[in-house]
Amino acid sequence: MKITALAGGIGASKFLAGLARVMPPEDITIIANTGDDMEMFGLRICPDIDTITYTLSGVVNQQTGWGIEGDTFECLRSLARLGEDVWFNLGDRDLATHIYRTNQLKRGKTLAQATDDIRRSLGVRSPILPMADAYTPTRVITDEGDLHLQEYFVRRRCQPSVKAIRYENIERALPARGVEQAILDADCVIVCPSNPFISIGPILAVPGIRDLLRRTKAKVAAITPVVAGRALKGPTADMLRSLGHEVSAAGVARLYSDFVKLFVLDKADIELKQSIEQLGLRVAAMNTVMTTMEDKENLARRTLELG
Amino acid sequence: MKITALAGGIGASKFLAGLARVMPPEDITIIANTGDDMEMFGLRICPDIDTITYTLSGVVNQQTGWGIEGDTFECLRSLARLGEDVWFNLGDRDLATHIYRTNQLKRGKTLAQATDDIRRSLGVRSPILPMADAYTPTRVITDEGDLHLQEYFVRRRCQPSVKAIRYENIERALPARGVEQAILDADCVIVCPSNPFISIGPILAVPGIRDLLRRTKAKVAAITPVVAGRALKGPTADMLRSLGHEVSAAGVARLYSDFVKLFVLDKADIELKQSIEQLGLRVAAMNTVMTTMEDKENLARRTLELG
Repeated sequence: MKITALAGGIGASKFLAGLARVMPPEDITIIANTGDDMEMFGLRICPDIDTITYTLSGVVNQQTGWGIEGDTFECLRSLARLGEDVWFNLGDRDLATHIYRTNQLKRGKTLAQATDDIRRSLGVRSPILPMADAYTPTRVITDEGDLHLQEYFVRRRCQPSVKAIRYENIERALPARGVEQAILDADCVIVCPSNPFISIGPILAVPGIRDLLRRTKAKVAAITPVVAGRALKGPTADMLRSLGHEVSAAGVARLYSDFVKLFVLDKADIELKQSIEQLGLRVAAMNTVMTTMEDKENLARRTLELG
Repeated sequence: MKITALAGGIGASKFLAGLARVMPPEDITIIANTGDDMEMFGLRICPDIDTITYTLSGVVNQQTGWGIEGDTFECLRSLARLGEDVWFNLGDRDLATHIYRTNQLKRGKTLAQATDDIRRSLGVRSPILPMADAYTPTRVITDEGDLHLQEYFVRRRCQPSVKAIRYENIERALPARGVEQAILDADCVIVCPSNPFISIGPILAVPGIRDLLRRTKAKVAAITPVVAGRALKGPTADMLRSLGHEVSAAGVARLYSDFVKLFVLDKADIELKQSIEQLGLRVAAMNTVMTTMEDKENLARRTLELG
């Protein structure tokens, strides 16, 4: 069975860590959001790709969910001394990834090639594909102005009120090499429990991808990132509200209803089953809160069984 | 009294550290060799500029003479894990300098501007000017082929036999902003005790600089990098030999005899005084071996008195 997963950052990584333990990791192809990418100190940073890569390689910082366990911050401190504004945490080991990637891009490699090099070097057996090679930073239009996603998310800690989301440059992006095949050839496509606007939204906005998801013969499933009207992490619930959607798993299901066939709902939200089924989706309710590795494996196993 | 110093790496830095203690550092302008610059991991590394900057800011690693005291190497180790060839040592704090500089260049600043930013941030009061903004890597033609200076120097530890030295791209370089004025307006120009082929040679090869040194009304002095037929550090003696020059302070003096007025000889080489005077140079003999800070200060003070 070949699985293709659309993935954002931390929530997706937890699910993928479980999935890679209940099936052969080689058979999981991950299409990662790059809308949260940014240029910092002249380096290309891909937070979602790196969080997935570090999680699957086992080096991720378990406390934060991102970055590398036990990383040090000497370089960043020295950059601060040189007058750089260091609001985004980059450890010394993590920086090696960004330096390596930036250099590969400078030498004419694609982001897809650099991403593949890095995941192989770190011993990750699942192919990780960026959604696109192009740089398409997500902009968050807020009451404090037009912010890069990471400025909104990290620097301003999701405090500004969100008025709109814009995927800059997305109209010129193409799905990265392998993305089309991964969607069309999969037995099952899984939309990971990630924010629909800033993690999954950019992937769906790459010209062609949403249509591939509608056309594929794969079963397409989505796992809710919202439980009991709240996101486990991050601003999903706030964004649903401020962008005019129902603040619930049903609100998320509606955003995907043109291509998703199966929606995995948390059992705490069982009362939403019917309204999601009315969108034309099959619904399965289970525990979607991933605290332990067993939770992650169970969610992955049960999703696979349904898919 | 305004001093301008032509400087390479470690030998020059030691002298400059002494000089900055016997006169106001603001009145010393340093024109630094950039022929040893290289691109590594996509970053612009300027070893001589950095050695001078770190030495004058007091953060230099005293044991090695280069790099930052107490630096760590986490990023480099991670780059090795990603498959990079890490033969050139770059510490985590040191990397901040290269990341910062590379980013400034990418944003359109000149190397002179980036260098000035960095030395100010690190509290260095003497202006440090790169000889040129252009990238003019020194190539060493050896029995093992045509090597970048740093490949010859660091990777191959000066083992290959040197047949010729070539300053790539130098014909298109211009003296960096401030260099001309620093040479013409100085009361005294000092050629630091550095290798004449790979440290001072590239500076003299920048179109216009040698002529400025001949034309300036400043007293131009040079301090020998060779004592008793040997260099204190590095391949100067070997290079003099293999490039067909006399392996002595007199051999170095001859290379500078068209623009240097005063040659500072080590007292161990007093027997060379006459042959250097025959080149038309004044000669002063003193202790030029800098072991303690007192040695550095004494050499600087006595050179200033003569200049």
